[in-house]
Amino acid sequence: MHTIPHFQEELQQLKTRLLEMGGLAEERVRSVVQALVERNAPVVDRVLAGDGPINQLHIEIDSRCFKLLALHQPMAVDLRAIVSAVKINTDLERVGDLAINIAEAVKRYMRHSPVKELIDIPRMADIAQRMLRDALDAYVRRDVALAQAVLDEDDALDALKTQVFRELLTYMLQDPSTIEPSLDLILISRHLERIGDHATNVAEDVIFMVSARDVRHHVREI
Amino acid sequence: MHTIPHFQEELQQLKTRLLEMGGLAEERVRSVVQALVERNAPVVDRVLAGDGPINQLHIEIDSRCFKLLALHQPMAVDLRAIVSAVKINTDLERVGDLAINIAEAVKRYMRHSPVKELIDIPRMADIAQRMLRDALDAYVRRDVALAQAVLDEDDALDALKTQVFRELLTYMLQDPSTIEPSLDLILISRHLERIGDHATNVAEDVIFMVSARDVRHHVREI
Repeated sequence: MHTIPHFQEELQQLKTRLLEMGGLAEERVRSVVQALVERNAPVVDRVLAGDGPINQLHIEIDSRCFKLLALHQPMAVDLRAIVSAVKINTDLERVGDLAINIAEAVKRYMRHSPVKELIDIPRMADIAQRMLRDALDAYVRRDVALAQAVLDEDDALDALKTQVFRELLTYMLQDPSTIEPSLDLILISRHLERIGDHATNVAEDVIFMVSARDVRHHVREI
Repeated sequence: MHTIPHFQEELQQLKTRLLEMGGLAEERVRSVVQALVERNAPVVDRVLAGDGPINQLHIEIDSRCFKLLALHQPMAVDLRAIVSAVKINTDLERVGDLAINIAEAVKRYMRHSPVKELIDIPRMADIAQRMLRDALDAYVRRDVALAQAVLDEDDALDALKTQVFRELLTYMLQDPSTIEPSLDLILISRHLERIGDHATNVAEDVIFMVSARDVRHHVREI
Protein backbone atom coordinates (compact mmCIF):
# COMPACT_ATOMS: atom_id res chain seq x y z
CA MET A 1 0.00 0.00 0.00
CA HIS A 2 1.47 3.35 -1.02
CA THR A 3 -0.93 5.89 0.46
CA ILE A 4 -3.74 5.66 2.96
CA PRO A 5 -6.82 7.05 1.21
CA HIS A 6 -8.69 9.80 3.00
CA PHE A 7 -10.94 8.42 5.73
CA GLN A 8 -14.05 10.42 4.83
CA GLU A 9 -13.82 9.34 1.19
CA GLU A 10 -13.57 5.67 2.23
CA LEU A 11 -16.46 6.13 4.65
CA GLN A 12 -18.53 7.62 1.82
CA GLN A 13 -17.83 4.56 -0.33
CA LEU A 14 -18.86 2.33 2.56
CA LYS A 15 -22.17 4.18 2.86
CA THR A 16 -22.75 3.85 -0.89
CA ARG A 17 -22.19 0.09 -0.65
CA LEU A 18 -24.59 -0.22 2.28
CA LEU A 19 -27.27 1.67 0.34
CA GLU A 20 -26.65 -0.58 -2.65
CA MET A 21 -27.02 -3.68 -0.48
CA GLY A 22 -30.17 -2.26 1.14
CA GLY A 23 -31.59 -1.58 -2.32
CA LEU A 24 -30.93 -5.17 -3.38
CA ALA A 25 -32.51 -6.58 -0.21
CA GLU A 26 -35.56 -4.33 -0.54
CA GLU A 27 -36.01 -5.25 -4.21
CA ARG A 28 -35.91 -8.96 -3.38
CA VAL A 29 -38.60 -8.57 -0.73
CA ARG A 30 -40.71 -6.48 -3.08
CA SER A 31 -40.50 -8.92 -5.97
CA VAL A 32 -41.13 -12.07 -3.92
CA VAL A 33 -44.28 -10.59 -2.35
CA GLN A 34 -45.48 -9.39 -5.75
CA ALA A 35 -44.84 -12.92 -7.06
CA LEU A 36 -46.97 -14.26 -4.20
CA VAL A 37 -49.85 -11.97 -5.14
CA GLU A 38 -49.57 -12.76 -8.86
CA ARG A 39 -48.70 -16.46 -8.31
CA ASN A 40 -45.67 -15.97 -10.53
CA ALA A 41 -43.46 -19.05 -10.11
CA PRO A 42 -40.54 -17.94 -12.35
CA VAL A 43 -40.06 -14.78 -10.26
CA VAL A 44 -40.05 -16.89 -7.07
CA ASP A 45 -37.34 -19.09 -8.58
CA ARG A 46 -35.34 -16.00 -9.54
CA VAL A 47 -35.44 -14.82 -5.93
CA LEU A 48 -34.41 -18.26 -4.69
CA ALA A 49 -31.40 -18.32 -7.03
CA GLY A 50 -30.39 -14.68 -6.75
CA ASP A 51 -28.68 -14.09 -3.41
CA GLY A 52 -25.16 -14.01 -4.87
CA PRO A 53 -24.84 -10.21 -5.22
CA ILE A 54 -26.03 -9.56 -1.64
CA ASN A 55 -23.68 -12.17 -0.23
CA GLN A 56 -20.75 -10.70 -2.13
CA LEU A 57 -21.56 -7.20 -0.86
CA HIS A 58 -21.82 -8.63 2.66
CA ILE A 59 -18.24 -9.86 2.49
CA GLU A 60 -16.96 -6.73 0.74
CA ILE A 61 -18.57 -4.37 3.30
CA ASP A 62 -17.19 -6.34 6.25
CA SER A 63 -13.76 -6.22 4.68
CA ARG A 64 -14.02 -2.44 4.13
CA CYS A 65 -15.02 -1.96 7.78
CA PHE A 66 -12.02 -3.91 9.07
CA LYS A 67 -9.67 -1.94 6.80
CA LEU A 68 -11.10 1.36 7.99
CA LEU A 69 -10.72 0.33 11.63
CA ALA A 70 -7.18 -0.98 11.15
CA LEU A 71 -5.80 1.82 8.95
CA HIS A 72 -7.51 4.91 10.37
CA GLN A 73 -8.22 3.98 13.98
CA PRO A 74 -11.25 6.28 14.05
CA MET A 75 -12.60 7.76 17.29
CA ALA A 76 -16.00 8.80 18.71
CA VAL A 77 -18.77 9.14 16.12
CA ASP A 78 -16.56 7.82 13.30
CA LEU A 79 -15.70 4.70 15.32
CA ARG A 80 -19.38 4.19 16.10
CA ALA A 81 -20.22 4.69 12.40
CA ILE A 82 -17.89 1.86 11.34
CA VAL A 83 -18.98 -0.56 14.06
CA SER A 84 -22.59 0.28 13.18
CA ALA A 85 -21.81 -0.51 9.55
CA VAL A 86 -20.65 -4.00 10.60
CA LYS A 87 -23.94 -4.53 12.42
CA ILE A 88 -26.10 -3.02 9.66
CA ASN A 89 -24.30 -5.22 7.14
CA THR A 90 -25.35 -8.27 9.19
CA ASP A 91 -28.94 -7.03 9.37
CA LEU A 92 -29.12 -6.50 5.60
CA GLU A 93 -27.70 -9.94 4.92
CA ARG A 94 -30.41 -11.44 7.16
CA VAL A 95 -33.06 -9.52 5.23
CA GLY A 96 -31.66 -11.17 2.11
CA ASP A 97 -32.00 -14.56 3.84
CA LEU A 98 -35.58 -13.74 4.82
CA ALA A 99 -36.42 -13.03 1.17
CA ILE A 100 -35.27 -16.62 0.51
CA ASN A 101 -37.39 -17.93 3.39
CA ILE A 102 -40.41 -16.06 2.03
CA ALA A 103 -39.76 -17.47 -1.45
CA GLU A 104 -39.69 -21.02 -0.05
CA ALA A 105 -43.03 -20.45 1.69
CA VAL A 106 -44.51 -18.88 -1.46
CA LYS A 107 -43.45 -21.91 -3.47
CA ARG A 108 -45.24 -24.24 -1.03
CA TYR A 109 -48.26 -21.90 -0.87
CA MET A 110 -48.67 -21.99 -4.65
CA ARG A 111 -49.23 -25.76 -4.59
CA HIS A 112 -52.68 -25.05 -3.08
CA SER A 113 -55.67 -22.97 -4.16
CA PRO A 114 -55.49 -19.39 -2.85
CA VAL A 115 -56.89 -19.11 0.69
CA LYS A 116 -58.02 -15.52 0.29
CA GLU A 117 -57.31 -12.30 -1.52
CA LEU A 118 -54.04 -10.98 -0.15
CA ILE A 119 -54.23 -7.44 1.17
CA ASP A 120 -52.51 -7.25 4.54
CA ILE A 121 -49.38 -9.18 3.54
CA PRO A 122 -48.50 -6.80 0.65
CA ARG A 123 -49.21 -3.96 3.07
CA MET A 124 -46.79 -5.48 5.58
CA ALA A 125 -44.18 -5.81 2.82
CA ASP A 126 -44.62 -2.11 1.91
CA ILE A 127 -44.15 -1.02 5.51
CA ALA A 128 -41.13 -3.29 6.07
CA GLN A 129 -39.46 -2.03 2.87
CA ARG A 130 -40.08 1.59 3.78
CA MET A 131 -38.71 1.05 7.29
CA LEU A 132 -35.56 -0.49 5.84
CA ARG A 133 -35.09 2.34 3.31
CA ASP A 134 -35.68 5.04 5.92
CA ALA A 135 -33.36 3.36 8.43
CA LEU A 136 -30.54 3.30 5.87
CA ASP A 137 -31.20 6.91 4.85
CA ALA A 138 -31.07 7.80 8.53
CA TYR A 139 -27.68 6.06 8.76
CA VAL A 140 -26.24 7.85 5.75
CA ARG A 141 -27.55 11.27 6.81
CA ARG A 142 -27.01 10.65 10.54
CA ASP A 143 -30.65 11.65 10.99
CA VAL A 144 -31.91 10.74 14.48
CA ALA A 145 -35.46 12.01 13.84
CA LEU A 146 -35.85 9.73 10.83
CA ALA A 147 -34.42 6.79 12.82
CA GLN A 148 -36.97 7.49 15.55
CA ALA A 149 -39.77 7.50 12.93
CA VAL A 150 -38.66 4.00 11.88
CA LEU A 151 -38.96 2.78 15.47
CA ASP A 152 -42.49 4.21 15.64
CA GLU A 153 -43.57 2.35 12.47
CA ASP A 154 -42.86 -1.05 14.00
CA ASP A 155 -46.19 -1.03 15.85
CA ALA A 156 -48.13 -0.86 12.56
CA LEU A 157 -46.31 -3.95 11.32
CA ASP A 158 -47.00 -5.79 14.55
CA ALA A 159 -50.71 -4.95 14.40
CA LEU A 160 -50.97 -6.23 10.82
CA LYS A 161 -49.19 -9.45 11.76
CA THR A 162 -51.74 -10.07 14.54
CA GLN A 163 -54.60 -9.30 12.16
CA VAL A 164 -53.26 -11.71 9.52
CA PHE A 165 -52.91 -14.41 12.18
CA ARG A 166 -56.46 -14.01 13.54
CA GLU A 167 -58.03 -14.00 10.10
CA LEU A 168 -56.16 -17.10 8.95
CA LEU A 169 -56.97 -18.91 12.18
CA THR A 170 -60.66 -18.39 11.41
CA TYR A 171 -60.20 -19.89 7.95
CA MET A 172 -58.31 -22.89 9.33
CA LEU A 173 -60.96 -23.60 11.96
CA GLN A 174 -63.73 -23.46 9.34
CA ASP A 175 -62.07 -25.46 6.60
CA PRO A 176 -59.19 -27.91 7.21
CA SER A 177 -58.18 -27.76 3.53
CA THR A 178 -56.92 -24.22 4.21
CA ILE A 179 -54.64 -25.28 7.08
CA GLU A 180 -51.49 -25.97 5.09
CA PRO A 181 -51.55 -22.88 2.84
CA SER A 182 -52.62 -20.70 5.80
CA LEU A 183 -49.57 -21.86 7.76
CA ASP A 184 -47.36 -20.60 4.96
CA LEU A 185 -49.09 -17.22 4.91
CA ILE A 186 -48.59 -16.97 8.69
CA LEU A 187 -44.90 -17.79 8.24
CA ILE A 188 -44.60 -15.17 5.49
CA SER A 189 -46.16 -12.52 7.72
CA ARG A 190 -43.65 -13.42 10.47
CA HIS A 191 -40.74 -13.18 8.05
CA LEU A 192 -41.96 -9.70 7.06
CA GLU A 193 -42.23 -8.75 10.72
CA ARG A 194 -38.61 -9.82 11.16
CA ILE A 195 -37.57 -7.60 8.26
CA GLY A 196 -39.15 -4.77 10.25
CA ASP A 197 -37.14 -5.92 13.28
CA HIS A 198 -33.93 -5.64 11.27
CA ALA A 199 -34.91 -2.12 10.16
CA THR A 200 -35.51 -1.34 13.84
CA ASN A 201 -32.01 -2.64 14.70
CA VAL A 202 -30.53 -0.34 12.07
CA ALA A 203 -32.51 2.63 13.41
CA GLU A 204 -31.31 1.91 16.97
CA ASP A 205 -27.73 1.75 15.72
CA VAL A 206 -28.18 5.15 14.04
CA ILE A 207 -29.39 6.73 17.27
CA PHE A 208 -26.48 5.20 19.17
CA MET A 209 -24.00 6.26 16.48
CA VAL A 210 -25.11 9.90 16.45
CA SER A 211 -25.86 10.49 20.10
CA ALA A 212 -23.91 7.68 21.84
CA ARG A 213 -27.26 7.09 23.50
CA ASP A 214 -28.42 3.51 23.80
CA VAL A 215 -32.17 3.33 23.15
CA ARG A 216 -32.34 -0.42 23.05
CA HIS A 217 -33.29 -1.17 26.61
CA HIS A 218 -34.29 2.27 27.87
CA VAL A 219 -31.82 1.79 30.70
CA ARG A 220 -29.30 4.58 30.87
CA GLU A 221 -26.94 6.66 28.77
CA ILE A 222 -23.48 5.33 28.15
CA MET B 1 -7.86 8.34 32.97
CA HIS B 2 -4.47 7.71 34.55
CA THR B 3 -3.30 4.45 33.02
CA ILE B 4 -4.51 2.40 30.10
CA PRO B 5 -5.15 -1.10 31.50
CA HIS B 6 -3.44 -3.94 29.73
CA PHE B 7 -5.27 -4.97 26.58
CA GLN B 8 -5.18 -8.73 27.18
CA GLU B 9 -6.54 -8.30 30.68
CA GLU B 10 -9.43 -6.19 29.39
CA LEU B 11 -10.06 -8.69 26.62
CA GLN B 12 -10.18 -11.47 29.23
CA GLN B 13 -12.82 -9.55 31.17
CA LEU B 14 -14.80 -9.07 27.98
CA LYS B 15 -14.74 -12.82 27.37
CA THR B 16 -15.89 -13.49 30.93
CA ARG B 17 -18.82 -11.14 30.45
CA LEU B 18 -19.80 -12.80 27.16
CA LEU B 19 -19.74 -16.22 28.84
CA GLU B 20 -21.85 -14.83 31.68
CA MET B 21 -24.36 -13.43 29.21
CA GLY B 22 -24.40 -16.70 27.27
CA GLY B 23 -25.03 -18.59 30.51
CA LEU B 24 -27.98 -16.32 31.35
CA ALA B 25 -29.46 -16.71 27.85
CA GLU B 26 -29.04 -20.47 27.92
CA GLU B 27 -30.60 -20.75 31.39
CA ARG B 28 -33.63 -18.75 30.26
CA VAL B 29 -34.18 -21.03 27.27
CA ARG B 30 -33.73 -24.11 29.46
CA SER B 31 -36.20 -22.97 32.11
CA VAL B 32 -38.90 -21.78 29.71
CA VAL B 33 -38.88 -25.09 27.83
CA GLN B 34 -38.95 -27.03 31.11
CA ALA B 35 -41.89 -24.84 32.17
CA LEU B 36 -43.63 -25.77 28.92
CA VAL B 37 -43.17 -29.48 29.61
CA GLU B 38 -44.29 -29.15 33.25
CA ARG B 39 -46.99 -26.53 32.52
CA ASN B 40 -45.45 -24.36 35.19
CA ALA B 41 -46.99 -20.87 34.83
CA PRO B 42 -44.97 -19.10 37.57
CA VAL B 43 -41.69 -20.06 35.86
CA VAL B 44 -43.03 -18.74 32.55
CA ASP B 45 -43.87 -15.43 34.25
CA ARG B 46 -40.38 -15.33 35.76
CA VAL B 47 -38.85 -15.67 32.30
CA LEU B 48 -41.16 -12.97 30.94
CA ALA B 49 -40.13 -10.55 33.68
CA GLY B 50 -36.45 -11.44 33.90
CA ASP B 51 -34.61 -9.97 30.90
CA GLY B 52 -33.08 -7.10 32.88
CA PRO B 53 -29.69 -8.74 33.62
CA ILE B 54 -29.15 -9.76 29.97
CA ASN B 55 -30.07 -6.32 28.71
CA GLN B 56 -27.68 -4.68 31.16
CA LEU B 57 -24.86 -7.00 30.09
CA HIS B 58 -25.68 -6.21 26.46
CA ILE B 59 -25.05 -2.52 27.05
CA GLU B 60 -21.99 -3.12 29.24
CA ILE B 61 -20.35 -5.44 26.70
CA ASP B 62 -20.93 -3.03 23.82
CA SER B 63 -19.42 -0.26 25.89
CA ARG B 64 -16.35 -2.41 26.74
CA CYS B 65 -15.86 -3.19 23.04
CA PHE B 66 -15.93 0.49 22.05
CA LYS B 67 -13.46 1.36 24.81
CA LEU B 68 -11.10 -1.42 23.71
CA LEU B 69 -11.25 -0.25 20.09
CA ALA B 70 -10.75 3.42 20.97
CA LEU B 71 -8.02 3.03 23.59
CA HIS B 72 -5.97 0.16 22.23
CA GLN B 73 -6.52 0.32 18.47
CA PRO B 74 -6.00 -3.43 18.16
CA MET B 75 -4.87 -5.05 14.91
CA ALA B 76 -5.37 -8.38 13.10
CA VAL B 77 -6.81 -11.18 15.25
CA ASP B 78 -7.31 -8.86 18.25
CA LEU B 79 -9.29 -6.40 16.12
CA ARG B 80 -11.37 -9.24 14.75
CA ALA B 81 -11.91 -10.56 18.30
CA ILE B 82 -13.39 -7.24 19.45
CA VAL B 83 -15.59 -6.73 16.39
CA SER B 84 -16.74 -10.36 16.78
CA ALA B 85 -17.60 -9.62 20.40
CA VAL B 86 -19.89 -6.79 19.25
CA LYS B 87 -21.67 -9.20 16.91
CA ILE B 88 -21.82 -12.06 19.42
CA ASN B 89 -23.23 -9.65 21.99
CA THR B 90 -26.05 -8.85 19.53
CA ASP B 91 -26.69 -12.56 18.93
CA LEU B 92 -26.90 -13.32 22.65
CA GLU B 93 -29.28 -10.45 23.24
CA ARG B 94 -31.54 -11.84 20.49
CA VAL B 95 -31.44 -15.27 22.16
CA GLY B 96 -32.68 -13.50 25.30
CA ASP B 97 -35.50 -11.96 23.23
CA LEU B 98 -36.35 -15.38 21.80
CA ALA B 99 -36.70 -16.78 25.34
CA ILE B 100 -39.35 -14.07 25.84
CA ASN B 101 -41.06 -15.00 22.56
CA ILE B 102 -41.10 -18.66 23.62
CA ALA B 103 -42.54 -17.71 27.02
CA GLU B 104 -45.36 -15.77 25.33
CA ALA B 105 -46.20 -18.79 23.16
CA VAL B 106 -46.03 -21.12 26.18
CA LYS B 107 -48.46 -18.88 28.05
CA ARG B 108 -50.94 -19.07 25.17
CA TYR B 109 -50.35 -22.82 24.77
CA MET B 110 -51.21 -23.47 28.40
CA ARG B 111 -54.71 -22.08 27.94
CA HIS B 112 -55.52 -25.29 26.00
CA SER B 113 -55.30 -28.99 26.77
CA PRO B 114 -51.94 -30.49 25.84
CA VAL B 115 -51.83 -31.52 22.17
CA LYS B 116 -49.32 -34.29 22.71
CA GLU B 117 -46.47 -35.44 24.87
CA LEU B 118 -43.56 -33.15 24.15
CA ILE B 119 -40.39 -34.94 23.14
CA ASP B 120 -38.90 -33.24 20.09
CA ILE B 121 -39.22 -29.69 21.38
CA PRO B 122 -37.19 -30.35 24.57
CA ARG B 123 -34.69 -32.16 22.35
CA MET B 124 -34.48 -29.08 20.10
CA ALA B 125 -33.93 -26.92 23.17
CA ASP B 126 -31.08 -29.20 24.33
CA ILE B 127 -29.37 -29.01 20.96
CA ALA B 128 -29.80 -25.24 20.67
CA GLN B 129 -28.40 -24.69 24.18
CA ARG B 130 -25.43 -26.95 23.52
CA MET B 131 -24.72 -25.19 20.21
CA LEU B 132 -24.75 -21.84 21.98
CA ARG B 133 -22.47 -23.04 24.79
CA ASP B 134 -20.02 -24.66 22.37
CA ALA B 135 -19.97 -21.60 20.11
CA LEU B 136 -19.07 -19.36 23.05
CA ASP B 137 -16.43 -21.81 24.27
CA ALA B 138 -15.03 -21.81 20.76
CA TYR B 139 -14.87 -17.99 20.87
CA VAL B 140 -13.11 -17.91 24.22
CA ARG B 141 -10.61 -20.64 23.27
CA ARG B 142 -10.33 -19.53 19.63
CA ASP B 143 -11.13 -23.14 18.73
CA VAL B 144 -11.97 -23.46 15.02
CA ALA B 145 -12.69 -27.22 15.22
CA LEU B 146 -15.30 -26.69 17.93
CA ALA B 147 -16.85 -23.84 15.93
CA GLN B 148 -17.06 -26.14 12.92
CA ALA B 149 -18.78 -28.80 15.07
CA VAL B 150 -21.43 -26.20 15.97
CA LEU B 151 -22.09 -25.53 12.28
CA ASP B 152 -22.53 -29.26 11.71
CA GLU B 153 -25.13 -29.57 14.49
CA ASP B 154 -27.49 -27.13 12.80
CA ASP B 155 -28.79 -29.85 10.48
CA ALA B 156 -30.07 -31.91 13.42
CA LEU B 157 -32.04 -28.93 14.65
CA ASP B 158 -33.47 -28.32 11.21
CA ALA B 159 -34.55 -31.97 10.85
CA LEU B 160 -36.32 -31.88 14.24
CA LYS B 161 -38.12 -28.65 13.29
CA THR B 162 -39.44 -30.31 10.11
CA GLN B 163 -40.51 -33.38 12.09
CA VAL B 164 -42.35 -31.26 14.69
CA PHE B 165 -44.11 -29.39 11.90
CA ARG B 166 -45.25 -32.54 10.06
CA GLU B 167 -46.51 -34.21 13.19
CA LEU B 168 -48.48 -31.17 14.35
CA LEU B 169 -49.93 -30.68 10.88
CA THR B 170 -51.37 -34.21 11.11
CA TYR B 171 -52.99 -33.37 14.46
CA MET B 172 -54.46 -30.14 13.11
CA LEU B 173 -55.94 -31.84 10.06
CA GLN B 174 -57.54 -34.54 12.22
CA ASP B 175 -58.90 -32.35 15.01
CA PRO B 176 -59.53 -28.59 14.61
CA SER B 177 -59.48 -28.12 18.40
CA THR B 178 -55.71 -28.72 18.26
CA ILE B 179 -55.11 -25.96 15.68
CA GLU B 180 -54.50 -23.08 18.05
CA PRO B 181 -52.19 -24.86 20.53
CA SER B 182 -50.37 -26.60 17.65
CA LEU B 183 -49.63 -23.22 16.08
CA ASP B 184 -47.90 -22.17 19.29
CA LEU B 185 -45.81 -25.33 19.36
CA ILE B 186 -44.79 -24.68 15.75
CA LEU B 187 -43.79 -21.14 16.68
CA ILE B 188 -41.80 -22.41 19.67
CA SER B 189 -39.93 -24.88 17.45
CA ARG B 190 -39.08 -22.03 15.05
CA HIS B 191 -37.85 -19.84 17.90
CA LEU B 192 -35.58 -22.70 18.99
CA GLU B 193 -34.35 -23.08 15.44
CA ARG B 194 -33.46 -19.38 15.45
CA ILE B 195 -31.48 -19.83 18.66
CA GLY B 196 -29.49 -22.43 16.73
CA ASP B 197 -29.06 -19.85 13.94
CA HIS B 198 -27.59 -17.39 16.44
CA ALA B 199 -25.18 -20.08 17.69
CA THR B 200 -24.24 -20.65 14.05
CA ASN B 201 -23.56 -16.92 13.61
CA VAL B 202 -21.26 -17.00 16.63
CA ALA B 203 -19.44 -20.07 15.28
CA GLU B 204 -18.95 -18.36 11.89
CA ASP B 205 -17.56 -15.28 13.66
CA VAL B 206 -15.10 -17.51 15.53
CA ILE B 207 -13.82 -19.07 12.30
CA PHE B 208 -13.46 -15.62 10.75
CA MET B 209 -11.76 -14.24 13.85
CA VAL B 210 -9.16 -17.00 14.03
CA SER B 211 -8.47 -17.62 10.37
CA ALA B 212 -9.69 -14.40 8.69
CA ARG B 213 -11.57 -16.84 6.49
CA ASP B 214 -15.17 -16.04 5.68
CA VAL B 215 -17.24 -19.24 5.74
CA ARG B 216 -20.57 -17.54 5.49
CA HIS B 217 -21.17 -17.71 1.78
CA HIS B 218 -18.51 -20.22 0.73
CA VAL B 219 -17.28 -17.64 -1.74
CA ARG B 220 -13.60 -16.86 -1.26
CA GLU B 221 -11.00 -16.03 1.33
CA ILE B 222 -10.54 -12.40 2.27
